[in-house]
Amino acid sequence: MFDLDTFTLAPGFYAAAAACGLKTSSAMGATDLDVALVAAERPCSAAGVFTTNRVKAAPVLYDQEILAQNPGGIRAVVANAGCANACTGPRGMDDARRMAALAAYGLRCQPDEVLVLSTGVIGRHLDMDKLAQGIAEVTSPAGARRGAGFAAQAIMTTDTRPKVASRQLAAGGSSITISGFCKGAGMIHPNMATMLAIVTTDVIVPPGLLRQTLRAAVARSFNRVSVDGDMSTNDTVLLLASGASGVELTTENTESMEDHNSSSSVSSVISVLTFTEALTEVCVDLAKQIARDGEGATRLVEIHVTGAVDEGQAHVVADSIARSPLVKTAVHGGDPNWGRVLCAAGYSGAAIDPDRLSLTFGGSDAAVQVVARGLPTAYQERDAAATLRGDPVRIALDLGLGGAEATVWTCDFSKEYVEINAHYTT
Amino acid sequence: MFDLDTFTLAPGFYAAAAACGLKTSSAMGATDLDVALVAAERPCSAAGVFTTNRVKAAPVLYDQEILAQNPGGIRAVVANAGCANACTGPRGMDDARRMAALAAYGLRCQPDEVLVLSTGVIGRHLDMDKLAQGIAEVTSPAGARRGAGFAAQAIMTTDTRPKVASRQLAAGGSSITISGFCKGAGMIHPNMATMLAIVTTDVIVPPGLLRQTLRAAVARSFNRVSVDGDMSTNDTVLLLASGASGVELTTENTESMEDHNSSSSVSSVISVLTFTEALTEVCVDLAKQIARDGEGATRLVEIHVTGAVDEGQAHVVADSIARSPLVKTAVHGGDPNWGRVLCAAGYSGAAIDPDRLSLTFGGSDAAVQVVARGLPTAYQERDAAATLRGDPVRIALDLGLGGAEATVWTCDFSKEYVEINAHYTT
Repeated sequence: MFDLDTFTLAPGFYAAAAACGLKTSSAMGATDLDVALVAAERPCSAAGVFTTNRVKAAPVLYDQEILAQNPGGIRAVVANAGCANACTGPRGMDDARRMAALAAYGLRCQPDEVLVLSTGVIGRHLDMDKLAQGIAEVTSPAGARRGAGFAAQAIMTTDTRPKVASRQLAAGGSSITISGFCKGAGMIHPNMATMLAIVTTDVIVPPGLLRQTLRAAVARSFNRVSVDGDMSTNDTVLLLASGASGVELTTENTESMEDHNSSSSVSSVISVLTFTEALTEVCVDLAKQIARDGEGATRLVEIHVTGAVDEGQAHVVADSIARSPLVKTAVHGGDPNWGRVLCAAGYSGAAIDPDRLSLTFGGSDAAVQVVARGLPTAYQERDAAATLRGDPVRIALDLGLGGAEATVWTCDFSKEYVEINAHYTT
Repeated sequence: MFDLDTFTLAPGFYAAAAACGLKTSSAMGATDLDVALVAAERPCSAAGVFTTNRVKAAPVLYDQEILAQNPGGIRAVVANAGCANACTGPRGMDDARRMAALAAYGLRCQPDEVLVLSTGVIGRHLDMDKLAQGIAEVTSPAGARRGAGFAAQAIMTTDTRPKVASRQLAAGGSSITISGFCKGAGMIHPNMATMLAIVTTDVIVPPGLLRQTLRAAVARSFNRVSVDGDMSTNDTVLLLASGASGVELTTENTESMEDHNSSSSVSSVISVLTFTEALTEVCVDLAKQIARDGEGATRLVEIHVTGAVDEGQAHVVADSIARSPLVKTAVHGGDPNWGRVLCAAGYSGAAIDPDRLSLTFGGSDAAVQVVARGLPTAYQERDAAATLRGDPVRIALDLGLGGAEATVWTCDFSKEYVEINAHYTT
């Protein structure tokens, strides 16, 4: 979708990457780059959404502390792959602090202006000597590989490809950019499984408002993707706003002005709704790339639940289907085993009336309705099977109870998933 | 554990099996037997525990109806494999009724004295012509294969072996028997996934009390086993009591009398606590056989959570670990990736203090503590890996918060699981 060499962050940011030897195994990434830096020319507003796992990695605890203290003055994010710095106790917290301090030293800013991210094996301490070398490289003008494309590669672990997304939005006579990258392959589940994302923008926005937009976007993107139902200790989505566009985010309704392509007097504002919509698009784009690149995955699977009494119920049903190993293996085998889909809906915990369920496999070009009001239709097995060979595979379940809907993305479940995960640390 | 040829149900019951061609695919069982009958010489007390899936198969709805009407007068259970009779609408309900009526005709009893069980593919109608033939065989003295061992084989689908368990208990000068069989391989999860069990006993007991003992036993056995986290539309555990022992179940405390091996005046009673304990043992025995025979499984995995504030929290944590594909693939690969265990505990939703967690891999002969109070110990990787090659593999997590505990059984997750489930219906 993007050319990695030309992929850039929002104006006001730069990125760099280096290889310092933290990835000790070839299973930990297709590249030996393992340290990434995203830095801003001036202090930024910043917001984060973090794992809800009760076992939180040191970088998560550290970032939560920094964002509580200094959300309006963030200068950089430094990230490493190869070691998650999770289940590492007080020494892990010290290492996270030192990681920030090393980056601050290189960037000539304060430690509390730096956020940190780590991903990789749990329960091992960071090799701080190697990491110090890597951070010195990414923060020096000469030493590292410059460019957001390299940073996107450096945070990869079992990912097979880097994941980037961008949007530009006109705002009166100006424009704003939302651009970010992420990683995540196994352990991906709603509530932010081992998934790291750094999204940058150039709007002018106070941290509190930025946080609201991020929470709204994450709820409909990263929290709607599932690879294996596991949720990691390290999941983090960070959003940094440089203000470099000169366009200000406003909570006032400016839609009518934008609709009329109005004069330069309003060129410096963009409504929070418009911005949140675009931010959600970028996050959905990134989240779908994560699902498609699930460990061992061969296809993206989009589960669309409609007819629910409310969005929460729709989400619960879609999530239950997305988590079902039986559904995911059936998709992998191209087997239109719709009973497994209805079954997963049935045990989701949501209100279900079996006699109102309708189910369709496939997309707009080749959709086959297999269940109507709880009973199988007279579909041809061959036609239904054909829809499961598409990419993405679409599973559309209508609960027939109301007007709410939700979409969840996942992937099929292959033998390669088992192969990858049976031998990850060794 | 048991010799199938000599395996018998409790006194007062007999069993038979036949092959009528409902298993249309070799993937549906190592045997072509597909109809099973368990029948009693006289009307029995009966109780059932059923799937909590909102999408319930016709036989589940039918049995719930019969047990509400006639719990003290059940004469038989007729079961088929190959077709689950689920998502089959009104015609499915008619088929379940007809299945009972056919058995009642053969046994010369009333239709509302017969319970039915079905397992197999969802969303297809039963072939009633074939099934009528099979039921005629199992209910005729001459036509079928007699013996509970054959019945245990006839209900198998992806199971690789039949599963049976028995206990005898002295009750004063008499003895009572609890003996049953079950099936279940994929889709197994707490709250009774595609799992069928028929347990027989010869105590004298009213249906209400029988139901209490069954609920208590199931809560600590079949609801503590997980293969892939899916929960089926058909799960059913049935318990039938013939009364043939002449021993009566009593809610009075008779322990002291039993302890003294007392006179024949009390030989005809057994306490409900003693009975429930033995029933739980039989159900745990059966449940562990289900976990060990999970699709593609190579090892039984026993997850023992201690130090919880209450049993519910202990169960939630153990269940979350048992459901984690990352934990199950790590066990399969012999990889002591304890971070995944702590991670799964962390996202279970239970109260967790990461700094109080202690984790031990392995059994009594070769146990290795890998985490003490939240931090890795100085264990040898080789020793920890060795414990994962045992069978069963034991994972013991101490939450360090209280005195409650729970055990959940599951299996490892192999490539064969994917192979089996990618092509089940075709």
